[in-house]
Amino acid sequence: MAGNSFGQLFRITTFGESHGEAIGVIVDGCPAGLTVDLDYIQGELDKRKPGQSKITTQRKEADTVKILSGTFESKTTGTPIAMIIPNEDQRSKDYGHNVDIFRPSHADYTYFTKYGIRDHRGGGRSSARETAARVAAGALAKLLLKTQGIEILAHVSSVGKIDAPNVSITNAEEFIEQREQNIVRCADPATAVEMIEFIDSVRKDGDTVGGKVSCHIQNCPVGLGDPVFDKLHADLGKAMLSINAVHGFEFGSGFEGSSMRGSEHNDVFVTDADGKVSTITNFSGGIQGGISNGMPIEFKVAFKPVATIMHNQQTVDSTGKAAEISGKGRHDPCVVPRAVPIVEAMAALVLADHWLRNKNSKL
Amino acid sequence: MAGNSFGQLFRITTFGESHGEAIGVIVDGCPAGLTVDLDYIQGELDKRKPGQSKITTQRKEADTVKILSGTFESKTTGTPIAMIIPNEDQRSKDYGHNVDIFRPSHADYTYFTKYGIRDHRGGGRSSARETAARVAAGALAKLLLKTQGIEILAHVSSVGKIDAPNVSITNAEEFIEQREQNIVRCADPATAVEMIEFIDSVRKDGDTVGGKVSCHIQNCPVGLGDPVFDKLHADLGKAMLSINAVHGFEFGSGFEGSSMRGSEHNDVFVTDADGKVSTITNFSGGIQGGISNGMPIEFKVAFKPVATIMHNQQTVDSTGKAAEISGKGRHDPCVVPRAVPIVEAMAALVLADHWLRNKNSKL
Amino acid sequence: MAGNSFGQLFRITTFGESHGEAIGVIVDGCPAGLTVDLDYIQGELDKRKPGQSKITTQRKEADTVKILSGTFESKTTGTPIAMIIPNEDQRSKDYGHNVDIFRPSHADYTYFTKYGIRDHRGGGRSSARETAARVAAGALAKLLLKTQGIEILAHVSSVGKIDAPNVSITNAEEFIEQREQNIVRCADPATAVEMIEFIDSVRKDGDTVGGKVSCHIQNCPVGLGDPVFDKLHADLGKAMLSINAVHGFEFGSGFEGSSMRGSEHNDVFVTDADGKVSTITNFSGGIQGGISNGMPIEFKVAFKPVATIMHNQQTVDSTGKAAEISGKGRHDPCVVPRAVPIVEAMAALVLADHWLRNKNSKL
Amino acid sequence: MAGNSFGQLFRITTFGESHGEAIGVIVDGCPAGLTVDLDYIQGELDKRKPGQSKITTQRKEADTVKILSGTFESKTTGTPIAMIIPNEDQRSKDYGHNVDIFRPSHADYTYFTKYGIRDHRGGGRSSARETAARVAAGALAKLLLKTQGIEILAHVSSVGKIDAPNVSITNAEEFIEQREQNIVRCADPATAVEMIEFIDSVRKDGDTVGGKVSCHIQNCPVGLGDPVFDKLHADLGKAMLSINAVHGFEFGSGFEGSSMRGSEHNDVFVTDADGKVSTITNFSGGIQGGISNGMPIEFKVAFKPVATIMHNQQTVDSTGKAAEISGKGRHDPCVVPRAVPIVEAMAALVLADHWLRNKNSKL
Repeated sequence: MAGNSFGQLFRITTFGESHGEAIGVIVDGCPAGLTVDLDYIQGELDKRKPGQSKITTQRKEADTVKILSGTFESKTTGTPIAMIIPNEDQRSKDYGHNVDIFRPSHADYTYFTKYGIRDHRGGGRSSARETAARVAAGALAKLLLKTQGIEILAHVSSVGKIDAPNVSITNAEEFIEQREQNIVRCADPATAVEMIEFIDSVRKDGDTVGGKVSCHIQNCPVGLGDPVFDKLHADLGKAMLSINAVHGFEFGSGFEGSSMRGSEHNDVFVTDADGKVSTITNFSGGIQGGISNGMPIEFKVAFKPVATIMHNQQTVDSTGKAAEISGKGRHDPCVVPRAVPIVEAMAALVLADHWLRNKNSKL
Repeated sequence: MAGNSFGQLFRITTFGESHGEAIGVIVDGCPAGLTVDLDYIQGELDKRKPGQSKITTQRKEADTVKILSGTFESKTTGTPIAMIIPNEDQRSKDYGHNVDIFRPSHADYTYFTKYGIRDHRGGGRSSARETAARVAAGALAKLLLKTQGIEILAHVSSVGKIDAPNVSITNAEEFIEQREQNIVRCADPATAVEMIEFIDSVRKDGDTVGGKVSCHIQNCPVGLGDPVFDKLHADLGKAMLSINAVHGFEFGSGFEGSSMRGSEHNDVFVTDADGKVSTITNFSGGIQGGISNGMPIEFKVAFKPVATIMHNQQTVDSTGKAAEISGKGRHDPCVVPRAVPIVEAMAALVLADHWLRNKNSKL
Repeated sequence: MAGNSFGQLFRITTFGESHGEAIGVIVDGCPAGLTVDLDYIQGELDKRKPGQSKITTQRKEADTVKILSGTFESKTTGTPIAMIIPNEDQRSKDYGHNVDIFRPSHADYTYFTKYGIRDHRGGGRSSARETAARVAAGALAKLLLKTQGIEILAHVSSVGKIDAPNVSITNAEEFIEQREQNIVRCADPATAVEMIEFIDSVRKDGDTVGGKVSCHIQNCPVGLGDPVFDKLHADLGKAMLSINAVHGFEFGSGFEGSSMRGSEHNDVFVTDADGKVSTITNFSGGIQGGISNGMPIEFKVAFKPVATIMHNQQTVDSTGKAAEISGKGRHDPCVVPRAVPIVEAMAALVLADHWLRNKNSKL
Repeated sequence: MAGNSFGQLFRITTFGESHGEAIGVIVDGCPAGLTVDLDYIQGELDKRKPGQSKITTQRKEADTVKILSGTFESKTTGTPIAMIIPNEDQRSKDYGHNVDIFRPSHADYTYFTKYGIRDHRGGGRSSARETAARVAAGALAKLLLKTQGIEILAHVSSVGKIDAPNVSITNAEEFIEQREQNIVRCADPATAVEMIEFIDSVRKDGDTVGGKVSCHIQNCPVGLGDPVFDKLHADLGKAMLSINAVHGFEFGSGFEGSSMRGSEHNDVFVTDADGKVSTITNFSGGIQGGISNGMPIEFKVAFKPVATIMHNQQTVDSTGKAAEISGKGRHDPCVVPRAVPIVEAMAALVLADHWLRNKNSKL
């Protein structure tokens, strides 16, 4: 069973290796009549692309996206939308020395054992490069959601042990502007400075460090999510966990909620003057019984440190013999700044899918 | 799009409300020739059933499972296996007083808004009662996995702020025996005593508390998991998050891993005398690049406190008017002891599915 | 990969063997708020049930359907609807003599070889008995379609070489009334008499004969069908071909259309006074480019003769040795009269599914 | 719900319009380790491409396929295989005059009504041009099947009222050689001459004509097909009916079988000296109970005449007003010669999918 499709009604299928011809995606199920703003899609890709700053990998890729099908005079036609991003800087000779060696905490060993063959160039399909296709498709999903006023807003909330304070989000544009003012994509400027310094010092050590991305979804209508298995947070969780390097997902009260009591955790319902129901607290993270309740959706994603480090490491080769690996190549000291658009993209794909699915909840 | 099926090749579809005629499940895709031990399946259900002890709900259900199809002379035949569990103690009058009131942090409001109608009796489909069907199907998956030596072993590792020390697991039977010696299902006997006392005090307060379940999977072969979306941990995460009250999932180093450096987090490969590759540490939690690497799979699940408490609470009714709710009915002060077999069942469903899927990874 | 589910949004999963405890179906994805008329569902099952007349099998089954979940006060709630039909007349001793013998043109040999095990009682899962579950689910789909005025109207158009003239259908109720006035379910009374006589003579010979069912769908809106693979007629074709004994499917001009010229086959568009577009002829059978065009949908299904005959036949047993089989048991001399409700049910499932799917064709 | 994917385990997703940048396909689920013979794939495309002979459309397309991902050193790696075919001869000005007119028996009206927008250039997505992507993917499926000795062999068996006699097929290569010796792709040379003459005369009339393609599958193992819905012939039927212009599908005895008696239709089992079970006749068409029985699989596909003719025709425009259309553009007088590789491709996709699915039929 193939694992390269995601979503039911707004469904994507991606392809491409780190050092192949191109990577890309087919989006099937996008309703006809959506205006496709190619600049917006390219802008999202630019936030993910390598070589942005001193704290990201120095690989250079323009990551220029091209739409091959599914639009006519800048509108979607209801037919599948194929988007392609050529690979340009395929410096595969950098990887020649690791052909037969399993890099620690990479996917080399598992891919080789599972498939009996491995495209060793830059991690092949297991490279985070494949996430560019997700960002392109997610940007389209965002455009769809924007027609409904739904905004997906993520930022870096932790790097190593440095945690940003909670950022109160009211205006989507302001939030994005503030986040984009620093290269680590943390919406709290003071913490951002600290994070950048820390990542830079880790980079100089030839090391890497993990971090967390927090996501807030505004204006999600009540009703998205399909119990009992396709609960909204279950699909969000799967989406996030499918991103390279993610080791944890929590929403609402999350792991801390497990040490709380019901009497403090319950979100009390109130009605405002216009009859709109909301809750005073939001420990439910905007989702109750697996269905969005109209409050902001809040979740957090934990990324492990990037496995490629500039140190010598012990390992084994494909014959099982002990080997030493030296960390050449170009990689990120910390993945979270570039992970922000990926988290947003995957969240958008889940929301777009469930927004379409919810059309048929009742007669 | 319906959300009541789970899995691709080992696929289940469940049905049933808390106070309807019956709940049940169809398992489609189980290979023919598996010996079905009905006593084992019933035994798993007995671990989940209500009314087991003073720290679980007092609702009484025999939860007797019956197989309607798909087996012949105690073997699976390759046709769909339907299992049914009649509801017996449907004391729905207990719920009569809440017909039009949205209970805080329950699914009443979201179901009513999404579907325009709600079976208010005991939470209807949103009741954790539906998990009995998962446990029955999961028990079948476990039987399939046992033919391969794969064992799925969960226990309660936290209740409120009480954390059990790490339990080293070598023998599956011993672990289960030890866990089942106490009513909270914690494999560390000393912590279990503490947890039980605490839950009992919370119960006496008319309150509830959350907790965590840790899961360890032994003897999983290398190769399970289908990148880039159906990574093994992504499917495990979705499975866990689809369980009622779950607010978080992490595997391997999890959330803590996000504050580590690559140089400490990387799992170094070594080969033993028989040529078997393993890693010295297991921060990867048995999964690399979304594919099992032959090390034990380790993950943790966070449960929020049960929303039903025996206190008066403010809320609104279906017309939006303020209302007060008083907590009658019979519910669990802490859900984790009964969640252990559910976590194991869902993990088994994911593993069985990916074990079948992996048959076609190479020619 | 399991094959017991059908449909994407209006999705059914069936279970059950000829001589097991029960057969049944889960319908997942039916919108909430549909009034469920249980008498209507039972009425559809009564048209399929065995023992109706002298030209159907003498097996007696009440085929009483029971709804286990998914409705509340006679309305669907958006949760899965499980329906169950107990098996009553499980005279499996009739089949004891054929345990190890492969009946010619039955599924005994293929099931045994594929699964390595076979529930030989009455054909097990390969018995047409499983179609009762389809009829129950299809009746629910019909109720959904009736809310849109869509009517699915099938009848027996051929038995052996006896062909009914084309029946012009205007009023759905009249058509059904006329069809149900004879036991062969042909809407042309004169042909019906001839068919019944012929089937009766075939029955007396201990033989069986094939036939055709024609289906006409009224008031289908423009727009159902999802190119390029899930064209409406492709899904109808699969639905029909999945019914036991079906060997052919054609729509519109069908096989005859292959010998026509474009200039005679093209359906010319015209607009009536109200601006409604229609076509003068309907060689397209109501479907163009895989999408319904608002004209009546017309298709025809060919059924082979039932394989169970009351003659002695040569065959082999499960060890490959030559064997003779004598045709005991109770079976239909001609399957088409009982196939009419099955054809309608499967068509309804396809239409309901595509009606839901079409909600998302445009913004 | 999107309709541009086909298959479960060997799964394809296609994209592309007649006059867009490119068409293409992603194949997900092809096992790793398959040698990819790009020349073979190109050769299959060459059989489908336009401009081959005087009896096909004069549009010129090189139809050169390029693989973008999923292979490494000419072997599949288990990752998705993307193939792309650029559009070259996009003479869209030919279509400018039909922008707002609905061509009779084309998909213009249904697409416009369903999606609210239409890429009118050459039929957009509804053009048979999309089948090139199917042929590329099908060629890969054929390569997979060839590793098992399975051969899929189709030819033109009817054009208009001209029927070829049954062709006995023993050697796959000889059959293909014989078929490819004439431009109509009929394996009976004498009938081929007659067909070509007839098509040419129809072409000179500015008209079109339908035809039939017969397909024979050799060496299919016993066991492919998943009852009760994904029967092998049901999936073959859907595959064929999804091809543009197909109006009918039958297998084995087909429509004629419906007028036969059971006593003549039943296929008697025999065992040969090696213990291999076969049947004396093959009215079952190689499939019993929805599962292949090891006999050759035989089916037939009916194609309606191409809708584009060089005559003036009455129709309506997008405002509902009467309009006249004159048939410019370049089109096929008869579609079946170019349909042969498409029928084979779709059959290969079904067989490859079920061959993978069957790996899990028993423990």
